[in-house]
Amino acid sequence: MSSPKRTSPESVRRVACVGAGVIGGGWVAHFLGRGYDVTAWDPAPDAEARLRRLVAAAWPALEQLGLAPGASPDRLTVTGTLEEAVADAEFVQESAPEKLELKRELLAKLDAATPAGVVIASSTSGYPMTDMQTAAAAPGRLVVGHPFNPPYLIPLVEVAGGERTDPDAVGWLSRFYECAGKSVITMDREVPGFIANRLQEALWREALHMVANGEATVADIDRSITEGPGLRWAVMGPMLTFALAGGEGGMAHMLDHFGPSLKSPWTRLEAPELDKELYDAVVSGCDDAADGRTVADLVGERDRGVIAVLRATGRLPRDGDA
Amino acid sequence: MSSPKRTSPESVRRVACVGAGVIGGGWVAHFLGRGYDVTAWDPAPDAEARLRRLVAAAWPALEQLGLAPGASPDRLTVTGTLEEAVADAEFVQESAPEKLELKRELLAKLDAATPAGVVIASSTSGYPMTDMQTAAAAPGRLVVGHPFNPPYLIPLVEVAGGERTDPDAVGWLSRFYECAGKSVITMDREVPGFIANRLQEALWREALHMVANGEATVADIDRSITEGPGLRWAVMGPMLTFALAGGEGGMAHMLDHFGPSLKSPWTRLEAPELDKELYDAVVSGCDDAADGRTVADLVGERDRGVIAVLRATGRLPRDGDA
Repeated sequence: MSSPKRTSPESVRRVACVGAGVIGGGWVAHFLGRGYDVTAWDPAPDAEARLRRLVAAAWPALEQLGLAPGASPDRLTVTGTLEEAVADAEFVQESAPEKLELKRELLAKLDAATPAGVVIASSTSGYPMTDMQTAAAAPGRLVVGHPFNPPYLIPLVEVAGGERTDPDAVGWLSRFYECAGKSVITMDREVPGFIANRLQEALWREALHMVANGEATVADIDRSITEGPGLRWAVMGPMLTFALAGGEGGMAHMLDHFGPSLKSPWTRLEAPELDKELYDAVVSGCDDAADGRTVADLVGERDRGVIAVLRATGRLPRDGDA
Repeated sequence: MSSPKRTSPESVRRVACVGAGVIGGGWVAHFLGRGYDVTAWDPAPDAEARLRRLVAAAWPALEQLGLAPGASPDRLTVTGTLEEAVADAEFVQESAPEKLELKRELLAKLDAATPAGVVIASSTSGYPMTDMQTAAAAPGRLVVGHPFNPPYLIPLVEVAGGERTDPDAVGWLSRFYECAGKSVITMDREVPGFIANRLQEALWREALHMVANGEATVADIDRSITEGPGLRWAVMGPMLTFALAGGEGGMAHMLDHFGPSLKSPWTRLEAPELDKELYDAVVSGCDDAADGRTVADLVGERDRGVIAVLRATGRLPRDGDA
């Protein structure tokens, strides 16, 4: 292959979305809201009607999020073939069903039909790109760009290349997503499930065990999160949240106090050994995250944040808003 | 023992908090904000100064949450002995360090010093009451009441009795916490770690594995939650959130589509077998939770909720508030 000629991330105007179910359709809505021209293709017979319904349902949210100048649902073109969808694309987002062989073949087809150099991202929620890029003639431009549902609302996207991915394509994709208003984590290695999916999958599996054993109902599980840790996690991640459980002693005190709980059968997941290296990595990671803020500062931030979330979610009246 | 004479949950005015660290102090702040008279005892030499600092730091949050009539930090009395703290209490909350032998002995001491019939709750984050109530003369009034940090801000409290706990004491405690403004899940059995702690512990253990393996930094982990699933979990629990990933087909479609991912190595936690019974329990649980709301209704609720949370947490300007 010749070296890729890519539109700069800042200059992209035309985006193709291949696969237009819940995730692909959510991407379409996101890119439309951000003012891009979007072409979309999906093999399902009723795909266009469903996609336009999804975009219409998302539009009020997109308006509240703030539309880019010129953004319009009219800038969506649904094509009859995959080839038409990607023919003029400056970026391609693939969101096909989560089947490895299907993804492999589809990415090879997309690679054959898409102008040279254009980056092709896969929304896969778990497959490493190394396993998906095997059939493509130009695997260097294939990158994972894993969003969260709905992509037009949840900022996070995780970016990771495969063994045969060109590092420039990874860098280009991370920058492009930032231009398109996403919050990007670029991973330097492939981990099945990436980061957030591993974390939420651990929680999900434990929840399924509890339902299977009759230990909690679906309603208990949901309420235990929305009335409990979920309120904190919109404001502060699990590591820094736990650091505050250590009081004025922070994460080090928390690990000294609750470290032994890692031996308790609190989940079916075996914990790692809390050796000095891990202890130090967690404590210094929290120190870095605090970035000079004292525990009192962090407690104040968390408290104001959670109160704002309680108001925002209707658990507190909003008229007393400060 | 004679049958217990208890103040009705609605009439309680005097609460004792034994152990006044981060959790015990957070309970003190909560009960003060709700207008109770609170006595507190903690054996640490600087306990009173630390406790009064914690209450002062929490007070702005308590004001925003809405103080009960007459609520004041002046209604806190720190006593020199455990016995003085509980002598006139109508309810006792124990929040000592998480050590089984210590909890066992302390609960026996509290039982000996507290007026007959008064319910004594333990804030333990993981021990079953069955294991903690063994040394007490009147184990029937000992119940787990497990809060989340900080107790004055996070509504959830999980209530569970031990084998020797009187079911009336469990019922009394759940009702009392409701009167005191908490959101209560009453469990009908003892599960180590209860519900929410098992769920967040699974996530925490997976996060520790990732740090230990160099797969993600502390900052990556926190951001992957606050910019990702954490935004949804303040609004909608993990089960109903995942149901929406199934699009118009809901949880059944989601399980058909992502069920096979349970076999993927996305966490170190082994998943349960997704047999028909579990499948049906999860799908019907989500149907119950939806309670007649369509997928479109739920998507609309989630979108409005997440946008409100994005505004509340400063990710979107608040002046465009609808």
